[in-house]
Amino acid sequence: MSIHGYSLLNGEPIESSGKAFAGLDPQTGASLQPCFHSASSEDVNRAVCLADEAFLSYGKLSGLEKGLFLRQIATEIELISGELVERARQETALPEKRLQGEVGRTAAQLRLFAQVVEEGSWVTARIDPAVPERTPLPRADLRSMLRPLGPIAIFGASNFPLAFSVAGGDTASALAAGNPVIVKAHPAHPGTSELVGQAISRGLHACGLPQGIFSLLFDAGTEVGVALVQHPKVKAVGFTGSLAAGKALMKLAAARPEPIPCFMEMSSSNPFFVLPEALRARGSQIGKGLFASFTLGTGQFCTKPGLIFLPSNEAGDTLVADLVAQVKQATPSTLLSQSICRNYSTGIQQRQAHSSVKLLAMASENEDPDNSLGVPALLQISGHDLLRDQELAKELFGPSAIIVRYESREEMIALAHALEGQLTATVQGTDSDLEAFADLISILERKAGRLIFNGYPTGVEVCHAMVHGGPYPSTSDSRSTSVGSQAIFRFARPVCYQDFPQTMLPAELKDGNPLGIWRLLDGEFTRAALGAPSS
Amino acid sequence: MSIHGYSLLNGEPIESSGKAFAGLDPQTGASLQPCFHSASSEDVNRAVCLADEAFLSYGKLSGLEKGLFLRQIATEIELISGELVERARQETALPEKRLQGEVGRTAAQLRLFAQVVEEGSWVTARIDPAVPERTPLPRADLRSMLRPLGPIAIFGASNFPLAFSVAGGDTASALAAGNPVIVKAHPAHPGTSELVGQAISRGLHACGLPQGIFSLLFDAGTEVGVALVQHPKVKAVGFTGSLAAGKALMKLAAARPEPIPCFMEMSSSNPFFVLPEALRARGSQIGKGLFASFTLGTGQFCTKPGLIFLPSNEAGDTLVADLVAQVKQATPSTLLSQSICRNYSTGIQQRQAHSSVKLLAMASENEDPDNSLGVPALLQISGHDLLRDQELAKELFGPSAIIVRYESREEMIALAHALEGQLTATVQGTDSDLEAFADLISILERKAGRLIFNGYPTGVEVCHAMVHGGPYPSTSDSRSTSVGSQAIFRFARPVCYQDFPQTMLPAELKDGNPLGIWRLLDGEFTRAALGAPSS
Repeated sequence: MSIHGYSLLNGEPIESSGKAFAGLDPQTGASLQPCFHSASSEDVNRAVCLADEAFLSYGKLSGLEKGLFLRQIATEIELISGELVERARQETALPEKRLQGEVGRTAAQLRLFAQVVEEGSWVTARIDPAVPERTPLPRADLRSMLRPLGPIAIFGASNFPLAFSVAGGDTASALAAGNPVIVKAHPAHPGTSELVGQAISRGLHACGLPQGIFSLLFDAGTEVGVALVQHPKVKAVGFTGSLAAGKALMKLAAARPEPIPCFMEMSSSNPFFVLPEALRARGSQIGKGLFASFTLGTGQFCTKPGLIFLPSNEAGDTLVADLVAQVKQATPSTLLSQSICRNYSTGIQQRQAHSSVKLLAMASENEDPDNSLGVPALLQISGHDLLRDQELAKELFGPSAIIVRYESREEMIALAHALEGQLTATVQGTDSDLEAFADLISILERKAGRLIFNGYPTGVEVCHAMVHGGPYPSTSDSRSTSVGSQAIFRFARPVCYQDFPQTMLPAELKDGNPLGIWRLLDGEFTRAALGAPSS
Repeated sequence: MSIHGYSLLNGEPIESSGKAFAGLDPQTGASLQPCFHSASSEDVNRAVCLADEAFLSYGKLSGLEKGLFLRQIATEIELISGELVERARQETALPEKRLQGEVGRTAAQLRLFAQVVEEGSWVTARIDPAVPERTPLPRADLRSMLRPLGPIAIFGASNFPLAFSVAGGDTASALAAGNPVIVKAHPAHPGTSELVGQAISRGLHACGLPQGIFSLLFDAGTEVGVALVQHPKVKAVGFTGSLAAGKALMKLAAARPEPIPCFMEMSSSNPFFVLPEALRARGSQIGKGLFASFTLGTGQFCTKPGLIFLPSNEAGDTLVADLVAQVKQATPSTLLSQSICRNYSTGIQQRQAHSSVKLLAMASENEDPDNSLGVPALLQISGHDLLRDQELAKELFGPSAIIVRYESREEMIALAHALEGQLTATVQGTDSDLEAFADLISILERKAGRLIFNGYPTGVEVCHAMVHGGPYPSTSDSRSTSVGSQAIFRFARPVCYQDFPQTMLPAELKDGNPLGIWRLLDGEFTRAALGAPSS
């Protein structure tokens, strides 16, 4: 397999005179071969026009056909697993085992969406048959189902070079819904991106589908992303990244002559509450779990528990001492890129310099500073001070956490009220803790997309019930998830067909229910054909 | 029943020193008693804070409790039907029969949403049970369902003083999902608004619910609406009105520190295509239907067919001549308000003055010009000219339509491609027309929320399969509908509960399925309890 260093359009690497850049080995800072070339604005336009043209046929593909395609991508990725993991390891410094797991997860996500579209009921088919005898006016025959939106712009994420990147969850769900996809590769892992892009292109070829369904664009800067979001034929955006970048793209999308929906997963500090009985009963065990969770993957998960709420009492002191001991003994590991390392170090320094924040512990940095090391750190602030400066509650990407010590139950509730939107919120407690703090749960339910009881927020299961979303600023649209099968709903809209002849209706809406899907027939869920007795 | 002229907060009319205004009789221009008072910014803040407080309990109400409340509102409205219709007739000049129908529709909408929440499956419950034995990592127990958003700001529409106003579809769906509502009354029918507001307040009282769940605010201008959309505790916006107002509110919502979702139904010219065989076979009948549809309710429906595509041939000429004859003989009727009348007259004049547009026919205005008459008008433009100036394809509110004559199939397809987003698109054709013009249908599917075959777009059924939405600028979010039971999904978001004890789970997610709702259990639809064999 060779990496060419050019954007992929119509299944071919496209030579471009755009600004050149290289993937960097975060451990050494060395440039990796080959050189990559930024796409031009003409490339962006061509990719979107190809996607728009391909949409005419791709948007009408059956679930079985789309399923085959998604499964083929999964297979193509698995076939180059060794090469992929090796390149991703060089570009991200993530451990081999983690990257192997990510290959598996990426393939599993594609197969989950294949299963969803093959089964077919996701389209939410609804049929209200005609009532010609109704007075004063007859009722028309009305049938609705979800249809794809059109070309979707997807931004690869830095922290999941595979599972949230070129063929990650956003791409898989957009393709599953019937939309062509244009991916803007993350510049921190361009070689990995190109390898996956080639795999998708081979998948298209193997399935006899137009190459316009997928394009991959490289860019050293922000121009390609801006042009994509502003292109009139692009109909929605999927993004995982920083709050600053996400907000900038949201503004562009809202300012278009035709505003489009944006699904940005941006920023979450994942508040973690330890309730009194649990703290007394198993504080030490919770301390171990917490440390493992906020340092997992060098603290680069969007669900890292970065904000830990503990009472100012002896049991709280003991847990803090436990965490301090673990952090001091921790071994730093390499962050994804030098810019992430700079941001992390600056973030720790700024907090340390803040009069309300105390640095409780920091691991020792024994190695070459060129290594982009993320040095685990533990900070502390009083609940009172955090209430006065909510900026300190914001996410810091990397292996750190800030402990918030509160003086009373009232202060804890006030702190929960003051939280911004979050991907997750965790409560450690006994059953009687939970009952005693039902008001806390009610507040957290308004703040987060996922509530975790006696667990840790890292580790996002890819399944039907997962919600990886939450109120702003954790995402741009709390009514969506970017992980799990419900992610498909971001990229579809309902269309209603009134009095259409059977021959012109999509299979999902035909009387006989040839696909055997679940439909809402006159308000009742059934897989029965129209006219047959309901099951 | 007495009308006080004050905003309703906490179930009481609130005296306010805000700018005074009166409802006007559009037929005479006379002020109607009493005088109304604009709410102050303190009133807005108080209404939202009351809503936010009430949300804590209202958001947790069972479907049965919410259903009772919605049914009670329906009853309270029906109890004052006579008075309501009389006041609405004075304020809107709409015929009594139409208003009686609207009372019925408003009550029916409330009962439809009652039925939806009583049945309960709308919450889209999904359960992926734990798999403790999974390797390398066990799977947690994950359960998700839709939860309400919080206080919702709803803007009453001018063209449906009941069905899209204070207790209209937006309010009904937001309340059904479990959200408190603050309505900003449309100033063209303030008395009607207050009567309905009182009915909701009595409904709350009868059900023993906090009055903070509903507030009604009056305003002569735009300040109350702006303050509502900008209030940090408001979590979403529902609006039906003009493109200019809708766009202004969308901008405000996007510019908030916490952007919020907006559901604006704004502008649609509802393209209408007559295909060759149907035109030859029943052009005259289609002409009658079309005329009735674009003049229905003095052309003040959002689904008015305002853009009629006809070939430049003899059959097309005949249909045009039919329409001309009907328009010339039409009797003008009163528009909803003097400002709508001014906009309509100006719009006709501007088009008439445009070099590409020809005024084919206009009804004669026999009456007093003070009467806010909407005089039916028929305009014509060539396809070629419309392609050069798409501004002429925009909605003109009132009893007019513009006929677009095209020279070729290619030009018709180009015209379809050039359309903006629409609520509806209609095709009149024989079955073989439909097959021959499958490409047209494909294009229209991307342009509209509802496709109508051999019918007329006015008359929006309130049912499960209805989609009253569409790509921008017809609405702000094509993934939603403002009519029909799917409207409830606008005001809810998924929340996932991980490893929660049974006692703390909402009833919808408990193992035993005590509500007997449809759930997705490990990917399979079932009403069975967890652990029981699936049905």
